[in-house]
Amino acid sequence: MRLVAIDASTWWGGVALVELVDGDPKLVAEIGVHIEGSHAARLLPVLESLLAIASWPRSSLDAYAAVRGPGSFTGVRVALGLVSGLSLSTGRPCVGVGTLDAMAEAFGPAAGDRVPLLDAGRGDVYGARFDPSGTPPKELRPAWVGDPVLALERGDAAVLFGEGARVHEKRLRDAGYSGPIARAATSVAAAAGRIAGAKLVAGNVGVDELAPLYVRPADAKVRTR
Amino acid sequence: MRLVAIDASTWWGGVALVELVDGDPKLVAEIGVHIEGSHAARLLPVLESLLAIASWPRSSLDAYAAVRGPGSFTGVRVALGLVSGLSLSTGRPCVGVGTLDAMAEAFGPAAGDRVPLLDAGRGDVYGARFDPSGTPPKELRPAWVGDPVLALERGDAAVLFGEGARVHEKRLRDAGYSGPIARAATSVAAAAGRIAGAKLVAGNVGVDELAPLYVRPADAKVRTR
Repeated sequence: MRLVAIDASTWWGGVALVELVDGDPKLVAEIGVHIEGSHAARLLPVLESLLAIASWPRSSLDAYAAVRGPGSFTGVRVALGLVSGLSLSTGRPCVGVGTLDAMAEAFGPAAGDRVPLLDAGRGDVYGARFDPSGTPPKELRPAWVGDPVLALERGDAAVLFGEGARVHEKRLRDAGYSGPIARAATSVAAAAGRIAGAKLVAGNVGVDELAPLYVRPADAKVRTR
Repeated sequence: MRLVAIDASTWWGGVALVELVDGDPKLVAEIGVHIEGSHAARLLPVLESLLAIASWPRSSLDAYAAVRGPGSFTGVRVALGLVSGLSLSTGRPCVGVGTLDAMAEAFGPAAGDRVPLLDAGRGDVYGARFDPSGTPPKELRPAWVGDPVLALERGDAAVLFGEGARVHEKRLRDAGYSGPIARAATSVAAAAGRIAGAKLVAGNVGVDELAPLYVRPADAKVRTR
């Protein structure tokens, strides 16, 4: 089974080609590109180039995946639109993957729970919590948005990573966090492809796959300001 | 300054476009591709595709870099040949970057010395040792080839990573190693581009830049068999 995964949820856009061999995902080719202007104008030629490099005809794709957020409002919608169109025109399945899930998968095994943090602007981050080494990652706490220190509410061992952790490192340290702030993978398209492959193999494809992922404020403490 | 870095030292080939802005490297676009057959036939179209995606005319490139080994005999020579040809035809500089250096740079900051290990076949690995967080990494022990346990000769804290560590994990554990065996980045082309940029900025370009890197057996213990 051949699938393509498209990520435009952050400034680093990516397209990955993944082949499932006996259910195991194998990354065949990947492009990452710094997206300065319009996402829409960039994604399709990037996909076409990658298919050409891999010698995969577009018609050989068996499934499509897109990263559904949180992240860039426009980028998420463009990627979801593109794979929806491909899916509609071919009748082949389409899967959505959360940005934070893909970040945890791309990070790989960690020494504690994986806590990816995305910069949400205005001092906030998007966060979630996953098990240390599951692949696909098992969600322990659903995606939330709010003050970076809300990532610390559970005291047990965790590894924080992602641009949200890097940007707010001082705030996290001032709040008493002494654990690791690790470097995140630049690209999450390949990881999204692996998660999508696992969902397809398990038949675990939901009805809201292609809805952008809206994230609610953390239950723990909704900020007032 | 715009530069391209090409890596064909392992089965995962890569091409990266890096722009130096005030001496700081910025990754603009990157392609990675699983190389099944001939390296030679794949690299040039991959480079051309990436330049098209980034809207960089080939004539806008100011410098070229290739990963010079250790690694795939053919892949290293094809990449070095390609950048040599580009450099000769344009008169612009060309830089070689060691595979293990690029692996350490791609790994990023670590909790101890960085020890990348590449599978060298027949039970051996290529290894080297770098400082924990220098960028570019500072070499503490030059590249060697031999038994994986030779990576353990210095007892102080180190982080082992790369396919050589993964493949020989049991051997390393049996030899008493209890430290981390971390996941390496899939692609090192962008890291090679960053190192090449730093070398060019520092004017630190040697006369043997484009010689494939031959690696001698470790001084510590040359194997007999």
